[in-house]
Amino acid sequence: MYKVNVGKKILSANEEYALKNSQLLTEQKKLCLNMISSPGSGKTTILTRTISDLKDKIKIGVIEGDIQTEIDAERIRATKAPAIQINTDGACHLSAAQVNSALENLPISDLDLIFIENVGNLVCPSAFELGESAKIAVLSVAEGDDKPAKYPSIFAKSKAMLINKIDLLKAGVQIDFDIERAKADARKLNKGIEIFPISAKTGEGLAGWYDWLKREVKKLRL
Amino acid sequence: MYKVNVGKKILSANEEYALKNSQLLTEQKKLCLNMISSPGSGKTTILTRTISDLKDKIKIGVIEGDIQTEIDAERIRATKAPAIQINTDGACHLSAAQVNSALENLPISDLDLIFIENVGNLVCPSAFELGESAKIAVLSVAEGDDKPAKYPSIFAKSKAMLINKIDLLKAGVQIDFDIERAKADARKLNKGIEIFPISAKTGEGLAGWYDWLKREVKKLRL
Repeated sequence: MYKVNVGKKILSANEEYALKNSQLLTEQKKLCLNMISSPGSGKTTILTRTISDLKDKIKIGVIEGDIQTEIDAERIRATKAPAIQINTDGACHLSAAQVNSALENLPISDLDLIFIENVGNLVCPSAFELGESAKIAVLSVAEGDDKPAKYPSIFAKSKAMLINKIDLLKAGVQIDFDIERAKADARKLNKGIEIFPISAKTGEGLAGWYDWLKREVKKLRL
Repeated sequence: MYKVNVGKKILSANEEYALKNSQLLTEQKKLCLNMISSPGSGKTTILTRTISDLKDKIKIGVIEGDIQTEIDAERIRATKAPAIQINTDGACHLSAAQVNSALENLPISDLDLIFIENVGNLVCPSAFELGESAKIAVLSVAEGDDKPAKYPSIFAKSKAMLINKIDLLKAGVQIDFDIERAKADARKLNKGIEIFPISAKTGEGLAGWYDWLKREVKKLRL
């Protein structure tokens, strides 16, 4: 009679790379945040502003995921931060292997924080662990306040949620977005989620986001 | 010696259902448009307004695809149009089998036009044929004018493209969206694509979209 050892969990190729990335980041005490949203919610603009505003306090590098083009990495590099562009050629999410290869090409030891800007997609990226410290969901008010209810997975899994483009709510335009409804729906899925209503364009609300980033980076340094 | 017949293409399960749907729609001379966009581009608002404005001219039914909730089908039913909600429970696109089952539950013989509102996702739905007459890409100006370049597949495959929320460009808010750039990038991928800049909220530009729908429905009646 043969015995099958079921004690060891067999990991998928993606999980194996995610574990490698997680070990590397933990050993080196680096914070790594995986930003997930629909296309056009403002992830790259949030990153360029965050990098510039925090440049004397936190050293930031970026891994850019896009189906095509180098547009986003070029926008990041204009801030002088190091950026690695990954083109997925049609795939709707980044894989842990792609992130592993990008981490090898970033000057990690010089950095405090690595942002992964995932492919613009509110669905698929939430199913693929990359070895990140935490996921950050981004939602712009132009997308509507029903998105946490309709696309629950990413809001359930994220440590923080940025509600971007709140400047549009004050410009006298007709945008039906109830911030309290979006917050309540996200908290139904994820009681402890941190929520920051911001405008990456005007700067409103960014102080709270920056304080949170500084606290999270500091936790790892202790 | 055996011969393998390679003359017959083996279809995937999805392709088989897509073919069934296409045959059904062609036999019954019904126009079926598969609307694809990111979450929050305004697909449901475009549909509710189109249904109401054209109610005396075109009989419309809707198949609603969402990961969770019946929110969108309820919005459609408020216009009195028949709507079937499909919940994909996590999947990032509708399948042809799901559409086949929805078609069985719609009063097709009473309709001229069936809209399929796919799951909000600019990537995955473009890879799954549903047997539709044509795909329609929707992009809102709040998402940025670089989306045809960054997410080319759906713009390459669509017969028409709606650029929605153009009212936001005129309200004195800071939105960087160059309609001519978006048009030029879409036409680089798809020379013949019809492009309609619209606001489903104010009604601007909808006349051109309605004329196009009427022409497409009429073609099938001949």
